[in-house]
Amino acid sequence: MGVPFTRAAAITLSDIGERVLASPQRLTVLGATGSIGESTLDLVGREPERFEIVALTAQSNAEKLAALAIKHRAQIAVVGDERCYEDLKAHLSGTGIEAAAGEDALAEAASRPADCTMAAIVGAAGLKPTFAAARQGRRVALANKECLVSAGDVFLAACRQSGAQLLPVDSEHSAALQSLAGAERAAVERIVLTASGGPFRCWPVERLKDAKPEEALKHPNWSMGAKITIDSATLMNKGLELIEAYHLFPVGVDQLDAVIHPQSVVHCFVHYIDGSVIAQLGPPDMRTPIALALNWPERRVTPTARLDLITVGSLTFEAVDDARFPGPQMAKDALRRGGSAPAVLNAANEVAVAAFLERGIGFLDIARVVARTLEEADRRGMIRATESLEDVLAADTHGRELARTVIATPH
Amino acid sequence: MGVPFTRAAAITLSDIGERVLASPQRLTVLGATGSIGESTLDLVGREPERFEIVALTAQSNAEKLAALAIKHRAQIAVVGDERCYEDLKAHLSGTGIEAAAGEDALAEAASRPADCTMAAIVGAAGLKPTFAAARQGRRVALANKECLVSAGDVFLAACRQSGAQLLPVDSEHSAALQSLAGAERAAVERIVLTASGGPFRCWPVERLKDAKPEEALKHPNWSMGAKITIDSATLMNKGLELIEAYHLFPVGVDQLDAVIHPQSVVHCFVHYIDGSVIAQLGPPDMRTPIALALNWPERRVTPTARLDLITVGSLTFEAVDDARFPGPQMAKDALRRGGSAPAVLNAANEVAVAAFLERGIGFLDIARVVARTLEEADRRGMIRATESLEDVLAADTHGRELARTVIATPH
Repeated sequence: MGVPFTRAAAITLSDIGERVLASPQRLTVLGATGSIGESTLDLVGREPERFEIVALTAQSNAEKLAALAIKHRAQIAVVGDERCYEDLKAHLSGTGIEAAAGEDALAEAASRPADCTMAAIVGAAGLKPTFAAARQGRRVALANKECLVSAGDVFLAACRQSGAQLLPVDSEHSAALQSLAGAERAAVERIVLTASGGPFRCWPVERLKDAKPEEALKHPNWSMGAKITIDSATLMNKGLELIEAYHLFPVGVDQLDAVIHPQSVVHCFVHYIDGSVIAQLGPPDMRTPIALALNWPERRVTPTARLDLITVGSLTFEAVDDARFPGPQMAKDALRRGGSAPAVLNAANEVAVAAFLERGIGFLDIARVVARTLEEADRRGMIRATESLEDVLAADTHGRELARTVIATPH
Repeated sequence: MGVPFTRAAAITLSDIGERVLASPQRLTVLGATGSIGESTLDLVGREPERFEIVALTAQSNAEKLAALAIKHRAQIAVVGDERCYEDLKAHLSGTGIEAAAGEDALAEAASRPADCTMAAIVGAAGLKPTFAAARQGRRVALANKECLVSAGDVFLAACRQSGAQLLPVDSEHSAALQSLAGAERAAVERIVLTASGGPFRCWPVERLKDAKPEEALKHPNWSMGAKITIDSATLMNKGLELIEAYHLFPVGVDQLDAVIHPQSVVHCFVHYIDGSVIAQLGPPDMRTPIALALNWPERRVTPTARLDLITVGSLTFEAVDDARFPGPQMAKDALRRGGSAPAVLNAANEVAVAAFLERGIGFLDIARVVARTLEEADRRGMIRATESLEDVLAADTHGRELARTVIATPH
């Protein structure tokens, strides 16, 4: 079989396949104290001779960041929040490790030469540093969603221009990459991402109306941050992942779908034109996709639990109920609308989830706020082509403002 | 990722991957009137411009063979049974298509230049013509089990010598090939073939004792011949497939396993060292693996039903109960024993299944006869290295004779 390739023609997987990183690999971890950052450094700590840590960054947890920087002998540690600079500096005193703080320092650290950057800053805050990493023209292991969801075309253009390799870290996209390995573009019929269905999978709509944040935060299979867990309960996370998949893989919107799979054992199905379906399965441990993104094209031993299908016993599948969980369809509609629509959808969703967590709106209002924000943005002519990171950041800002207005305005 | 390869180092999948067959492809179908042959010619009939049929063969169904030869404009049609020659000749009269009969004619037809040979003769009768096809040094799409089960080392040596490409047609092995695509040998931890469990999956051993041929012939998912259906009820088919997988893929006996999966939707799981598992799924239609074997490395559209996971709903997995279904373990033991042990196992199984179908022995006696035949063969020094097709055929003959003796001798 040939080689699969991403939407951005220059970032072909064949190209990725040919480029084995030097060992030791110079590695930067953006978002080192979060769950992806921690799992990445867990793997690094098991084979320290294979990595040379350039930069580690965090938003505000200076103490933990300093400890990681010392343990992994980083060149520089950066906190995003400037108020944490003194704390970081104190913890790194006498170690010879540079300390820095602030948005510009994050971008500067991200642009220091590294063979691979783990881009794991959550949210829109990750855009600038990840773009800085992409502009290096080396490998970007991408865990930040916004680079593709809000800034897809612009981010891929930046990668194409620099020749950066883009490797997905999300379990679903890593699964798609693995299930597409060796395939020709024309052979792919559909890509189907699985969704656990979250804690409200079986709740009737009347009950969903009154769902509480503490109920939504009980994710059945994965331990994640609050924002992502709420997105998993609304299924908007799957919508965002469909947008990412659209940018990563050579398929049209109508070839992308989601299926409910409560056990979260299968992560993706790729359906081919000959009737064959390739799937990737694995236990819920991010170290498997992280290891693949760090080591691609090589697979290396990970300490993750092995999948035992006999213990799992049963894998079940259900259709997404678009009435209760409109996220995936809304995301596909935003892709069809194009331009800044996905950026506005993502911004409105962040605002709506925050409002729900603060008990300002109900669970079902999250999707309503997103839908109304998109309608209103369209009505106001705010859905436009995005040609630069600045355009994307502007769409993000306007989307947030508009969503706040929508929340404040009774329908 | 690199390239997977088969046990026979020269028959690498990378080599297969690089070799795209010319179009039109000169195709020979050995066993054209059986179910694999029919499915192959169904695909050929949908794209007749892509194929030039060289030879079609059958055991005895001269009328059907002649009709297929005329429809697909074959150069020659051959029946194995010489008594059917006149019948074949009469049906082909005036068509310009050659008619021939007998074992030597089968081998001669199989050795005529063809880009690809679909080797779909069932049983030991397929050995000589398939070896003849392999000696051509072109592509062999292998559906005959005996070439690998009984003659594995010898057959692979023949392929290596001629440079023949070996592509599996069995749904499980095609699934393994697809799930291994792009993998390095060292990355593979386990290959697990699925088994439906057959009609007796839930039967207690007391009931199995009295299982009748007509009960065993009710296969839940696939429509196949009687011998294969009984093998599926005893799970010996899975044992034979494990032996084939051992020869096809670069793993040791202990890395091979079977799992019960009553829905027969997943055909194989490949477990990797990073915790990732790749699986191939598909509806029970042999045209998918056949199309892949004919067109590799390309996937082409097939008319098979598409897999709808929501309709399937649930995929379940259970351990093989070695006490009731010892076939897979017996096969792995025969592999460990080496030499002619797998050939003797296969021969004894054929005799035992025939005896069961003729109501000469009970269902549970099938495995007992195979086990006793192997023990007796070992005791008599009949398990030897096989270095030629003749050695294999001798082991097969002796295995059959011994199995008949075992059946005739009360234990």
